[in-house]
Amino acid sequence: MSATAISTDVYTQVQQFYARQMHALDACRFDEYAATFTEDGEFSHTPGRPAAHTRDGIARELRAFHEERFATEPVQRRHWFNMIHLIEAPDGSLRSTFYVLVVTSRPGERQPEIAPSCVVHDVLIRADGGLLNRSRRVEHDYLLDLKRT
Amino acid sequence: MSATAISTDVYTQVQQFYARQMHALDACRFDEYAATFTEDGEFSHTPGRPAAHTRDGIARELRAFHEERFATEPVQRRHWFNMIHLIEAPDGSLRSTFYVLVVTSRPGERQPEIAPSCVVHDVLIRADGGLLNRSRRVEHDYLLDLKRT
Amino acid sequence: MSATAISTDVYTQVQQFYARQMHALDACRFDEYAATFTEDGEFSHTPGRPAAHTRDGIARELRAFHEERFATEPVQRRHWFNMIHLIEAPDGSLRSTFYVLVVTSRPGERQPEIAPSCVVHDVLIRADGGLLNRSRRVEHDYLLDLKRT
Repeated sequence: MSATAISTDVYTQVQQFYARQMHALDACRFDEYAATFTEDGEFSHTPGRPAAHTRDGIARELRAFHEERFATEPVQRRHWFNMIHLIEAPDGSLRSTFYVLVVTSRPGERQPEIAPSCVVHDVLIRADGGLLNRSRRVEHDYLLDLKRT
Repeated sequence: MSATAISTDVYTQVQQFYARQMHALDACRFDEYAATFTEDGEFSHTPGRPAAHTRDGIARELRAFHEERFATEPVQRRHWFNMIHLIEAPDGSLRSTFYVLVVTSRPGERQPEIAPSCVVHDVLIRADGGLLNRSRRVEHDYLLDLKRT
Repeated sequence: MSATAISTDVYTQVQQFYARQMHALDACRFDEYAATFTEDGEFSHTPGRPAAHTRDGIARELRAFHEERFATEPVQRRHWFNMIHLIEAPDGSLRSTFYVLVVTSRPGERQPEIAPSCVVHDVLIRADGGLLNRSRRVEHDYLLDLKRT
């Protein structure tokens, strides 16, 4: 069903890449997160906010976003990725589409907030034996146009 | 602990198969979902509803179910699979048992519903270099008989 | 970004190990769960409770915990692991850090409780062609000190 079969090695490498990448983001290591993008990478994480460009731009955007949203109310966020659908494009890049839930815990509250549900579209390239995001675009399910054809 | 060790390739192939399969279902591509079953496949997704048989029967059942449940209230559903326990049966089929959460987003509501929690029992067979469901049986945790021995 | 690259085989083996291990725990097969630890294994699952030691001690602790918490109110729990970050330590052991959500269903209630959100730190060793937990330490996100530097 996929254009090009994805090898076991590549699929598992993507899973590991995402784990490292999101552990960095959830620990607010924004420069480390930005370094998982190509130098000219594009990151569009919230509808209505302009996409961030370049590693510097991505780290700056994340700092601004966290300052704006969480400065007065500390939280522990955990990004859960799942159901990774991976295909290889003719140019050798990987197109990865997967589900995301954002789990947000507040001090003293046992019950986390789990929202929103998202779908993410990544373009990944191989570099130096590893992977880098050339782009990431996040869609929020509750903002989708749900009219079906 | 498992009867037969599952190779890395097979385990990863199952993960990819599930991602493709459920992206199709969650996009309401019912024929594509049905085509991930064998021609005589069996699909039992909700306790109390009779199992659907054959690809045509499965696609028909899904259309009826969605019409009945979601026609007047559009939603975006996402099926999350996890903790896949895979063993190989003596006949070469794969027995896959895994956890599921159904994430349902409604337009304009940031907080999805995450329910029910399920366990799914699949029988998978290898065909044409890929995988197909010979059967799928869904159990809902809140309907389980929880008396322990 | 990781000290030592983890092979596809090892990463997938850890995923399968966790699936088997947690299916056992969630089915209240405590001796089977305890047997996934080394004979002298250490398991610290809830802040404020002392760590359990040895397989016997771990099985005993789990029986006591379940008796205390769930004896009068049967539940079906499901432990979801995700975003597994795995590195190999110089001594050959594996350090695994991953996210957990505990999904708890009660009879007749379609909506499970999903709490708390945790991070788990495992030390895994290879033994007899499989894996064993030398230790497991669970941190609960809502109890973390969220002051950032």
